Amino acid sequence: MADLCMLCAHLYLFRDGRSKFAVMTDIATRPRRGRPPKIPREHGDTREALLRCGMEVLTTQGMSATGIDAVLKRVGVPKGSFYHYFDSKDAFGFEVLQRYADYFARKLDRWLLEEGPSPLERLTRFVDDAKAGMVRHDFERGCLVGNLGQEVSTLPDGYREALEDVLRDWERRVAACLQLAADADEIPPGSDCDELASFFWVGWEGAILRARLTRDVRPMEVFFAGYLASVRIHPGRA
Amino acid sequence: MADLCMLCAHLYLFRDGRSKFAVMTDIATRPRRGRPPKIPREHGDTREALLRCGMEVLTTQGMSATGIDAVLKRVGVPKGSFYHYFDSKDAFGFEVLQRYADYFARKLDRWLLEEGPSPLERLTRFVDDAKAGMVRHDFERGCLVGNLGQEVSTLPDGYREALEDVLRDWERRVAACLQLAADADEIPPGSDCDELASFFWVGWEGAILRARLTRDVRPMEVFFAGYLASVRIHPGRA
Repeated sequence: MADLCMLCAHLYLFRDGRSKFAVMTDIATRPRRGRPPKIPREHGDTREALLRCGMEVLTTQGMSATGIDAVLKRVGVPKGSFYHYFDSKDAFGFEVLQRYADYFARKLDRWLLEEGPSPLERLTRFVDDAKAGMVRHDFERGCLVGNLGQEVSTLPDGYREALEDVLRDWERRVAACLQLAADADEIPPGSDCDELASFFWVGWEGAILRARLTRDVRPMEVFFAGYLASVRIHPGRA
Repeated sequence: MADLCMLCAHLYLFRDGRSKFAVMTDIATRPRRGRPPKIPREHGDTREALLRCGMEVLTTQGMSATGIDAVLKRVGVPKGSFYHYFDSKDAFGFEVLQRYADYFARKLDRWLLEEGPSPLERLTRFVDDAKAGMVRHDFERGCLVGNLGQEVSTLPDGYREALEDVLRDWERRVAACLQLAADADEIPPGSDCDELASFFWVGWEGAILRARLTRDVRPMEVFFAGYLASVRIHPGRA
């Protein structure tokens, strides 16, 4: 859990212009209870820090288990000032989700649009990077979209559609990569790349869930090995 | 959500010996607020009713979003008497999980040990039954193990191991079915049935998650089509 505030720490560092050492000490020794430290920040910086911290916390434990107070305290913002930055916890959650979706779309593009490796090799590198990320964060962080998806029945209206939109966006990016794989004969020409991309995301969210539970990357490996075996022969429905 | 208390309703029905109409009216019109109705029940019956209701609620919304008060009110048990039946919310959750695991193991056996259909056909029938169940419950109920797995980082010690034990038990049952499929040449002899069973449960939990999100059985179909394509050609590692 000590890893959780890394992004916040970077934000303090670059936005406040304070020395790295001073900032990291500040983060490391800040008590969890009591009055938050007074750190002078501009409005936009504080808003940004809240969103980034929200992204970490929701990626770790979802919405139901998250109190806004905990996020405010972590960032060092007085308890009463949340509504100065966001209209509601829901509005905050939506903005965190959008921020995460954008961040993740860029990450996908970085791997899937990379020139050099073959299309399936690009997808494999994305998977390897995700495995490394799970280990780096000690299996504490999952997928924010998977977390909120699991608790969607208790979330306010609008979350369901927003989460579906994000997953469909990610599916389109994987489908484009699979189409390149079909063009390059890595998978059968005529494969239904939209369906295969959907298959990837359906199973991948399950793999992330299980990897966090077992604290092991093995479920990610098992799923991806099975997935590759499937797409290489899948006759498609095109 | 009106569907949620069906099991409780059955329980009232059979345990209390009251007329079906009276009980269903009671359930349908019972106000959510105010003093719970006084329904005479034996200690064991009340305990059973709490566990069954807990199974429904946790299958729908997981642990973090569930207050014990809501379960007590739903079953019609006075707020103060929970600890008469269980040591703690955790102890209650564990017992609900065990109850669900047993219920689900019996369901798996019913489909996977059925004589007549081929082994892969048995698995297909299990999947079809799960799809029908999702529709019947209006995509409100997911997998209790998947729900708790997603929120495991906020649950007390012991849940992680308990959830893994349940999933490994379900994997063993699917692996045995796949071994029969290998013996019958439905999948290649020498397939690594343990790995393929793991692949099933990793992806299946993702499929349940996504089906609840989209309120559509399509993700379950997409996953299972891809899964079948994979197991039919998977070279295995045995």
